Order: sequence, then structure tokens, then C-alpha cells
Amino acid sequence: MNPALAQTDAAGRLRHLVTLDGLPRTLLEALIERAAACAAAPARSDALAGLTVANLFGEPSTRTRASFELAALRQGADVVNLEITLSSRAKGETLLDTVYTLLAMRVDVFVIRDAEAGVQEAVARAVDGQAAVVSAGEAHLSHPTQGLLDALTIRQAKGDIGRTRVAIVGDIARSRVARSAHRALATLGCPDLRIVAPRAMMPAAGEFEGARRFESMDEGIDGADVVMMLRIQHEREGGLPVDLGAYHGEFGLTAARLARAAPGAVVMHPGPMNRGVEIDSDVADGPQSLIRRQVANGVFVRMAVLAALAETRAAAAR
Amino acid sequence: MNPALAQTDAAGRLRHLVTLDGLPRTLLEALIERAAACAAAPARSDALAGLTVANLFGEPSTRTRASFELAALRQGADVVNLEITLSSRAKGETLLDTVYTLLAMRVDVFVIRDAEAGVQEAVARAVDGQAAVVSAGEAHLSHPTQGLLDALTIRQAKGDIGRTRVAIVGDIARSRVARSAHRALATLGCPDLRIVAPRAMMPAAGEFEGARRFESMDEGIDGADVVMMLRIQHEREGGLPVDLGAYHGEFGLTAARLARAAPGAVVMHPGPMNRGVEIDSDVADGPQSLIRRQVANGVFVRMAVLAALAETRAAAAR
Amino acid sequence: MNPALAQTDAAGRLRHLVTLDGLPRTLLEALIERAAACAAAPARSDALAGLTVANLFGEPSTRTRASFELAALRQGADVVNLEITLSSRAKGETLLDTVYTLLAMRVDVFVIRDAEAGVQEAVARAVDGQAAVVSAGEAHLSHPTQGLLDALTIRQAKGDIGRTRVAIVGDIARSRVARSAHRALATLGCPDLRIVAPRAMMPAAGEFEGARRFESMDEGIDGADVVMMLRIQHEREGGLPVDLGAYHGEFGLTAARLARAAPGAVVMHPGPMNRGVEIDSDVADGPQSLIRRQVANGVFVRMAVLAALAETRAAAAR
Repeated sequence: MNPALAQTDAAGRLRHLVTLDGLPRTLLEALIERAAACAAAPARSDALAGLTVANLFGEPSTRTRASFELAALRQGADVVNLEITLSSRAKGETLLDTVYTLLAMRVDVFVIRDAEAGVQEAVARAVDGQAAVVSAGEAHLSHPTQGLLDALTIRQAKGDIGRTRVAIVGDIARSRVARSAHRALATLGCPDLRIVAPRAMMPAAGEFEGARRFESMDEGIDGADVVMMLRIQHEREGGLPVDLGAYHGEFGLTAARLARAAPGAVVMHPGPMNRGVEIDSDVADGPQSLIRRQVANGVFVRMAVLAALAETRAAAAR
Repeated sequence: MNPALAQTDAAGRLRHLVTLDGLPRTLLEALIERAAACAAAPARSDALAGLTVANLFGEPSTRTRASFELAALRQGADVVNLEITLSSRAKGETLLDTVYTLLAMRVDVFVIRDAEAGVQEAVARAVDGQAAVVSAGEAHLSHPTQGLLDALTIRQAKGDIGRTRVAIVGDIARSRVARSAHRALATLGCPDLRIVAPRAMMPAAGEFEGARRFESMDEGIDGADVVMMLRIQHEREGGLPVDLGAYHGEFGLTAARLARAAPGAVVMHPGPMNRGVEIDSDVADGPQSLIRRQVANGVFVRMAVLAALAETRAAAAR
Repeated sequence: MNPALAQTDAAGRLRHLVTLDGLPRTLLEALIERAAACAAAPARSDALAGLTVANLFGEPSTRTRASFELAALRQGADVVNLEITLSSRAKGETLLDTVYTLLAMRVDVFVIRDAEAGVQEAVARAVDGQAAVVSAGEAHLSHPTQGLLDALTIRQAKGDIGRTRVAIVGDIARSRVARSAHRALATLGCPDLRIVAPRAMMPAAGEFEGARRFESMDEGIDGADVVMMLRIQHEREGGLPVDLGAYHGEFGLTAARLARAAPGAVVMHPGPMNRGVEIDSDVADGPQSLIRRQVANGVFVRMAVLAALAETRAAAAR
């Protein structure tokens, strides 16, 4: 098999962000710090001046695309949006021909969302040394900027991740959000990570190393400092038919259920929400909700990642 | 019921532009003056530097979207175009969740076109104090920047709106253009406003206060200084089947008919035109036509509105 | 008939780029030199600051649109992308109304791709003196920036086009790429231009003046310094059903066949490639391939053309 893609250079700088797997804690912390600094800094910078960011979204995603686009524009990048999929299911042109074409046009950063696993890594290998790849969502596997923004949001709310108990609730098996949150939180020393799902939505046994598994929501969120709800993915292929009413009854986050979590527990959701299914409106809009903060942090995390990639590039050019 | 949305602040500055209803004459005149100044100024400014404008067009509209986009880009804004509807017919995510998401990404101005009534006001209430809303067309009810550009165009051509007779001709009942033109012209003191339409296209009795109604075009445009033609809206839902030939015969603007208007009368149309239906080409392209001037003024009015909103925001931050 | 569109002003400056036909050798050489200079210059300039470029692509073309968009953004233009066709098949609004609308919004350069012949020239006549038109592909007839980038690529590889033998291979009859390459190379003094195609794909007798015709690929590329392969256009209307396997056998570029060309011959393709049909992967990716260089040169040529148009405009304003 291939050796692992080198996501960092010899000095530990970020070269690609395809997955959080294997990235050291110091790097994740530096990105989170940088994102927090973006929140405090003036809205605009020239950190990406002269660079070109291409958004390649093979799956529709208005909100994530807008988040990346704003993170790039506000740092002075030129941005092109391309509605193409790079997956092998696309006809007529191979993934690599499309990528080499854009690379020849001097695209510096490829932001890629695709429903097919492996697309981001394949592109990163192809452009390695010439351009950077950032995953904006890969199949059910990985969504690294989401993992970082979740970690930033938890740190802001709870201070020390090393003392925070986090429960992730929902269709864990098909969730890239859950996988990247698990990876970020495990790396950052979260001592108590729980995944809570009906049996049919539990991941395979080898996944989510170190996490405790609960098929009862009441047990799973008991004493949790953070309750992270997932979106029920009607549209994802391979999704099971779900009885939404029954799901709400067993795994929906209601105010009553939230009371089982720790005092001062916070509620998160990656959006878009199915109100009345996985989460009730009074919780989503209530004082414990950090859902809008997550969105704001999403832009800051993407700004930080893009700026870090630009610095790595500048260092390589010296 | 809700109290009226406050479109101006305590000092009378523009906070939102959802409708022209209720805006004072001094404010409309200031916006029109400012738009006229944009026409004379250099093409680019930094009036919107550091601000983000999101174009949310739930109805297709290449020309209006481009007009707003250019008005924003030429003043240094960051612009994102989102092809989403905020109406309640959209599935899966509520209007407010979408809006709060974009607000959390620090969108400063929401430019919204939607076929459903009330969307702009609902968004304005939700983001009030944090962002501004500009309507780019609301159902059959309101198109305020169109009303302003029409008023600017008439003032340029005729000088004093207080001495100008204006006839609006076409499907008045379903026209947001007519409603906003009526509102702008009434506020600016137009002494003689007429609406001209077949009975089936006349608005309800309580609407278009102060306007005279004509079911005969010859009578309606007699002596008018401005003949404003409307587009027959084949595509608008609820539209009646129209015999286009018969419509042209009774309400189409021909050169012969235009002779019934005042000497030096000018012709307007919001575009896109159905040539040979509501307007003949020799009139549309003739010396009395201001149709292209309207388009040019559209960009200037949108620049003025966006710049005014930016000033209000800056004042609030002081 | 109409007199020819004046693509240059009295001083020989470029006013439009609808076709390479009739443009003098000195102008083509100046554009090519300028494009080569763009390759060496910093990535960003202000050559188009304050100008607005509208991309009107009636045919889908992610790569060409992105190439023009980047060429404009990197020189400081404001860019709007409009997904509209200007062809007479579009309903509801005439070509000229759409164009005059955009012109009234102060679009300075219209970049137009359309499947219908004559659209670019019709627009250029309409906006003449106020804005410039650049063709990004016209039916099967013309693709002038592609012709220029092909000439630039050949000059870089071979030095003197006046000593270079070029074979173009494929569906010549339906190829705008072939027509513009022929025009560019003929103007620049190419002494030996060959078109190579099965009989059904040969152009009419009067076309490709001065080119030699070959129905055998082995004969056609014999001793050639440049082998330019064309894409088999499954999707183009009027295209014949092609037996792709048989086509590859007779006209596909294999390593064995390439050996019949001159030593050091180079291989070109406008993209996107049908690998295994008109070209084998070992050739496309081999040391003689200039395919990625062509894409890079495409951005530089479009930068040069846009900058030249901006200069002409500035000269006219003096």
C-alpha cells in the first residue's frame, strides 16, 4: 500500500488538511489558537493575497462552500467556484486530468468536498509540492475543519478539553462529523468520549477507539459536559429508512433529556438541523446551545487553515 | 400583530430596505441624490470595504442579481451568491436557521429575492441590529430599488416629479414594480399617477391610493409625461392565460399610441421586454425610450442603498 | 453583406477578439509576447482595475470559464459569471436586449462562449465603441485564445514557427480548435501545416487553405515537429457515431505512432482528453507532452488579451 500522505513538512507545518488522523496535538492546538485569534482580529487581511483558492464541491453544500469562500475572500485570495465532482463516477475526464488542468492554471489551494472516499488524498498526492488540499467533507469518513471548529467551540465553552466529557449522539456510523470530532477530541486529550446511537447506527467495532458506546441516550449523556447532536441524513446513500417520530422519542434531544447532562452542559449540532427530529427547538435556541457559535468558528478555523497553508508555501519558497 | 419593522434608526438613517412604504420623502430624496452622485463618481470606491454582501435569490434573475453584485463589488465588498430560497416551501431547514447560519458567518447585508411574501421582513426582524436586509423583489408586492431607480430616471428626464404625470400600464395587480413605483412617486409628490390595465389586471380597490384607474389605454396615457410599461408575466404563478395578440392590440405601446401622451413624453420598462407584446420595438429603441438608462440607474441606486446601509452600521458602531 | 467587424483601431490596437481571421502577424506576435511576459511577471497586477468582465457561457465549460475568470481576477477586474445563452434559441429576451442591459450596467468586456455561430460578432457590433468582446469558443468555427495559446506553446518549444511542421489530427470538420490553430499558425508563417482525419471528418474543400490533407495518420504525422490531437466530440450536435476502438486504431496517438514524427516532436491536446481514444496515456503523460503547458499558457494568453483590450480602451479615452 501507499505510505501515508505527509500532511506536514519537516518543520511540522501544515501542507494539506485531508484528515485529522495522524496530526500531532501541537499542530491542532496551534490551528485552534490561530482560529481564535482570527475571531479577535480585523475582518480582513492580506494573508492569502496573490493566492488562488478553488472550491470543488461535488456534493451540494451552500453553507460549507460559503464558509470556505468567505474565509478565502476575507484574506485576499482569488476564489473560483467549480461545480464539478472529482469522483471516479464522473464521466469523460479523469480526476487527475481535471486536477492537473487546475494546477496548470496555478490554483494554490484545492478545497474539495466529495461523496466518494479517497478523492482528497488522491488529489493531494497529485499536486503535492505544488498546491495544497483541504477536505471540506469526504464521504462518511472525514470532515477535518468541522472537527477543529467543534474542538475550538468546546474549548471556548469549557476551557480544558482534558477535563471535559463529550457525548456524540446520532447516526455515528455514517457521520464524518462524528469521526472528525472523535479524532480531534481524542488528540486533544478528552478523557471521556461517548458515542450514543441505536444499534443500527453504531460504527464497526474497531472504530472510535477509546470511546464508550451507549444504545440508551439517557445513559449516554448522563453527566456529559457537551452533547453533540448529529443530523439524521435522509439523503445520504446507504441511509436506512428511519421512523422519525420513534427516533425523536429515543434519541431526540429534549429539554427534559438535557437535564440528565452535567449542570451547564452545552449543546452542539453541525447543521442543518432537523428540528423536532434529532433536536427540539427549545434546546436548539436555548441558553445552552452553541450552534451559532460553531458556524462562526467554522469561518475562523477555515481562515486559520488557509493562512497556515499559505505560510507553509511561503516557507517552502524561501 | 407585529409593530412595523423599523427601517430607519433614530436619526432617520436607513437600516433595512424591505419596502418603500413608510419611508419619508427626505430619505427617498437623499437616496436618489446619492445614486445620481454615484453616476458621476469614479467607478470604484471603498465604501463597502470589509463588509460581506450575500445575494440570496430564490427566483431566477440574472439581471437583478448582476446589478446588485456589481453595486457591491465596485464598492469593495466581499460578495457570495447563494442559490437558495428562504421561503417556507424549502425543505429541511427553516428560514431562520439559514439566516442565522449566514449571520454567524458575519454577512453584513442580505440581498433577498423571493416569490413568497414576507420573507424579507422575517429575515430583517431576525437579523435586526446585526445585519441589514435589502429586498430585490418580494412576490407581487414590493421591489423597492426598482421604485427608486424609476423615480431617479423620471427626475433626470423631467426635473420635478411634483409636476409630472405618470401612467403605469399593464398587469398592475401582479406587479411589484408598479407597487413600488406608485409608492416612490406618491411619496415624492407626483400629482397625477394613473394605472392602466384591463379589468382582470386591476388591483383591489383599496390599493394604489390616489391613483386614477383606466381600462382604456388611449385615455390612460392621454397627456402623460411618462409611460411606464410592465412586462406581461407569463411565468408568475396565478397569472391568467393572456391572448398576446389581443393584449398588444389593446394595451401594447405602439408609436401611434405614444403620440397621445404629452409632447416629449418618455417611455420606461423594467425589463426584460416582450417585444411586440406590451411594447413595440420602434418605441423601445426610439428617442423617447429611457429603458437602458433605467438599467444604468439600477446599479447606481443599489450602490447608494448599500453605501447608506454601511454608513448606518458605522454610525451604530461609534 | 455587412462590412467586416473592425477588430483593431486605427493604430492597430485590439478592440475585440472574435476571430483570428484578418488579424495581422504583428498583432498576434505582440499578444504572444505579452502572454509570455505574463508568465514571468508577478501573479497579480492592476491592469484591469476598475473594469468589469462578464463571463457569458451558453455552453458548459468549467475549465475555459475558470481560465478567463482567473485571468481577469488576477489583473484586478470585477468579474460576474452569467449562465445565459445569447443565442437566438433562448426564449423571452432578445440577444441584444440582454447585451444592452449588461452594457448599461457598465460591463467593459464580454467573454462569450456559444454553440451558435455569429453570436460574438453580433454582440461586438452592438457594443462597439463602448465595450469589447472576446470569444471563448464559437460553434465549430473559432476559438481564438486557444489558437494563440497553441502558437505560444509551439514557439516556446520549437523557437521559430517559420521552421516548424505541424500536424493536426482528429475531427477537423467540427473543430474550432483546429480552425483557430490553422489561422494562427498560417499567419505566423508555419511552412508545413497538415490536417489528418478520416474522410468523414475532413473539412470542406475550401477550408484550411494551404494545409495538406492526409487520411492516413502514419503519413500525416511523418516528420512532424508538433502533433496536435483533437478531442473526439461525442457531445457536439451533428457529431457522427464513432466506433471508438476503430478510431483509436487508425487515428489514436500511441507511442509507436509518435515515433514516426520528427525526433523531439512535441504532443499537444486542447483537453479534456479521452484517454485511450484519441491519445494513449503514456503519450499524454510522457516527456514529449506539452498538454499542461498549454493550460498554463491559456491563462497567460487570456491575461494578455484582456490587458490589451484595457489599453485600447484607455487610449480611446485619452
